[in-house]
Amino acid sequence: MTKTVGIGLMSGTSLDGIDAVLVEIDGMDENVVVRMIDSITRSYSKEIREELLQLCDPSSANLQKICSANMFLGKEFGSVVNELLEKANLVKEDVHFISSHGQTIYHQPFNGENQVDVASTLQIGDLSTLSESTGIAVVGDFRTADMAAGGQGAPLVSFVDYLLFNNPNSSRAIQNIGGIGNVTYVPKNSPSDVTQSFDTGPGNMVIDEIVFRVTDGERHYDKDGEMAYQGQIHQDLLTKLISHEYFQIEPPKTTGRELFGKQFVDDIFNEYNQLSPVDLVATVTEWTAVSIAHSYKQFLVDKGYEINEVIVGGGGSYNPFLIERLKHHLPEMTIYTHEHFHISSDLKEAMAFAVLGYQCILGKYNQIPSATGAQKQVIMGKIAYTQPDALKRIDDLRSVLQ
Amino acid sequence: MTKTVGIGLMSGTSLDGIDAVLVEIDGMDENVVVRMIDSITRSYSKEIREELLQLCDPSSANLQKICSANMFLGKEFGSVVNELLEKANLVKEDVHFISSHGQTIYHQPFNGENQVDVASTLQIGDLSTLSESTGIAVVGDFRTADMAAGGQGAPLVSFVDYLLFNNPNSSRAIQNIGGIGNVTYVPKNSPSDVTQSFDTGPGNMVIDEIVFRVTDGERHYDKDGEMAYQGQIHQDLLTKLISHEYFQIEPPKTTGRELFGKQFVDDIFNEYNQLSPVDLVATVTEWTAVSIAHSYKQFLVDKGYEINEVIVGGGGSYNPFLIERLKHHLPEMTIYTHEHFHISSDLKEAMAFAVLGYQCILGKYNQIPSATGAQKQVIMGKIAYTQPDALKRIDDLRSVLQ
Repeated sequence: MTKTVGIGLMSGTSLDGIDAVLVEIDGMDENVVVRMIDSITRSYSKEIREELLQLCDPSSANLQKICSANMFLGKEFGSVVNELLEKANLVKEDVHFISSHGQTIYHQPFNGENQVDVASTLQIGDLSTLSESTGIAVVGDFRTADMAAGGQGAPLVSFVDYLLFNNPNSSRAIQNIGGIGNVTYVPKNSPSDVTQSFDTGPGNMVIDEIVFRVTDGERHYDKDGEMAYQGQIHQDLLTKLISHEYFQIEPPKTTGRELFGKQFVDDIFNEYNQLSPVDLVATVTEWTAVSIAHSYKQFLVDKGYEINEVIVGGGGSYNPFLIERLKHHLPEMTIYTHEHFHISSDLKEAMAFAVLGYQCILGKYNQIPSATGAQKQVIMGKIAYTQPDALKRIDDLRSVLQ
Repeated sequence: MTKTVGIGLMSGTSLDGIDAVLVEIDGMDENVVVRMIDSITRSYSKEIREELLQLCDPSSANLQKICSANMFLGKEFGSVVNELLEKANLVKEDVHFISSHGQTIYHQPFNGENQVDVASTLQIGDLSTLSESTGIAVVGDFRTADMAAGGQGAPLVSFVDYLLFNNPNSSRAIQNIGGIGNVTYVPKNSPSDVTQSFDTGPGNMVIDEIVFRVTDGERHYDKDGEMAYQGQIHQDLLTKLISHEYFQIEPPKTTGRELFGKQFVDDIFNEYNQLSPVDLVATVTEWTAVSIAHSYKQFLVDKGYEINEVIVGGGGSYNPFLIERLKHHLPEMTIYTHEHFHISSDLKEAMAFAVLGYQCILGKYNQIPSATGAQKQVIMGKIAYTQPDALKRIDDLRSVLQ
């Protein structure tokens, strides 16, 4: 093994499934170069997705389910890695490390009233189980370290956005549209500590949940924006959605299923039960576009932060209706998807987590305090290896590169 | 720093509080030598203990509480470490690592019916938060690695019992009496893989809960067996307790608050509400002694495994009534406490976890498959460091000792 080979794993809040990318990495910090070699995506089965949805909902999650699902997912992630290795015709000895985001089941960015009720986040998918299933050292469970330093534990990909998209001639908004939407603002020719980042609001989460319900579980998302194109935007509902208090909060800020999950969609259905399915889908898709555009104007442009280019990633970048509406609302900016930069919009987050894990192994900071609101830089991540040879491969990596 | 200095942290299922020991360690594997330098114990406040009890109970635990308590405890553990350092007049630069058991909030040794419902265990007390609070690298969350290899995730201290108590002339039962009772059987002059271990049943958990209730929360345990000495053993209740199905299960086996928690004590109070408080305490204390003695006879002696000496540790070793009853039921064996071997009965588990963490950092196996039922040896533990100098100190340790 001469080059560093890693695997990034991402399972987002949209609960679609697991993305796994095999990458080669050179350099470190601002000089890091990542190249994707291979990838697979495994959708969660209907049964597993249903179990996970229950876990993410405080009213249906329970202790025993959380305990089990943590180890179940560790094994499931391991099985995805083994499938990827087989596809790429590699063995565990060819891979230095796996870096896994885990499945977020709760995220509470602020302290509550009780002394125990602190700002916190919970990602499951046990790292030791993943390591034992694959024979490879694993890095994961990143977010708590940032929160321990006073950050909101998100967005984490900003660090990698900065490494990959920092440009001398263009100020850029790197917009991910996964379950949640988030933006990293990388002003031209700037050091990392002026990079800003925050969650713009819902990404596909509300769209997907509505599509799932109106198709009786037949579809999980609005493929190619088909349903949205057939619908009309309902102004009254849109106005109500845009008035959500989340959009008034100053960044840095993060959100998730707690605000825009099933309960939220229940409320829409209760109040707007006369709307046709396609009108509902069109309206919530427009809402995602508007929430992104408003966020840019209110929290960046109006404060003097120029944006020349928007680079969209995540599943939402494959929804042409959504991209069209984004272009409509942001005529003064050039809208790209990640593919323009030879990065898969779909797999970008998994790639980013490979970079975060790589930096952790090397003992290098992998977070930007100005993006997460943390009081200082930290190395995020925990490392697990269950067999001596797995440790040896990350030790070798460290001794060569440090 | 020439010697290896580590800190072991233990917070048991009895939810009393946190034990922290500062140790010096030399050698490794069978040649390991541990010496305690200093220690502190911090009891949980009434409020925190109440919160944790709710977390351990599937009917009152909830997602948001679990998420918060994980990070709250990480910080609480960090505060205990910082207090210990101050007491010992040391700074973070003097310490190579912290090893933390964490707080078990659920343990499910067998698979359930649902595919997601796998054998699993959940320890909280976030390692990254602990590392960021102290500036020291942390090892913890040990049990899942053993379960990933098919083990029951317990008892883990057996590995250290074997290292410390293996003897050419005496076959020994190392009995811990914490919340739960567990035994490690170390036959004389044997390799590690004939070491056996299993949970004998309740330790102090039921005694403590009854004392807590009958004193309206004034006392958390039966200090010096005072209440038990005043009571009479109630044969009918004792017979019922001994008939609990757990005692019929063949080892290896583990148990916890799921079987012998609040619900179990509710049932005792419901059925035996006419018994005096001291009779209740005497009877459940006798039950703990009998369950240990029966377990030895049924699962060891009757199967041809001779026991010459019993070495009792954990809080139960300070209950003279319990020790007296144990001697009564095991007249053919010599009963010692850990103090006879210059090890604190109270702090032995915290010391043991320091050894487990030390082995993990060195990339050495730290578990015995014959004790946990695992299919193979694994390195248990996950490692977190949030600052580069914390990583450097464990790297130094590895490079000197490996």
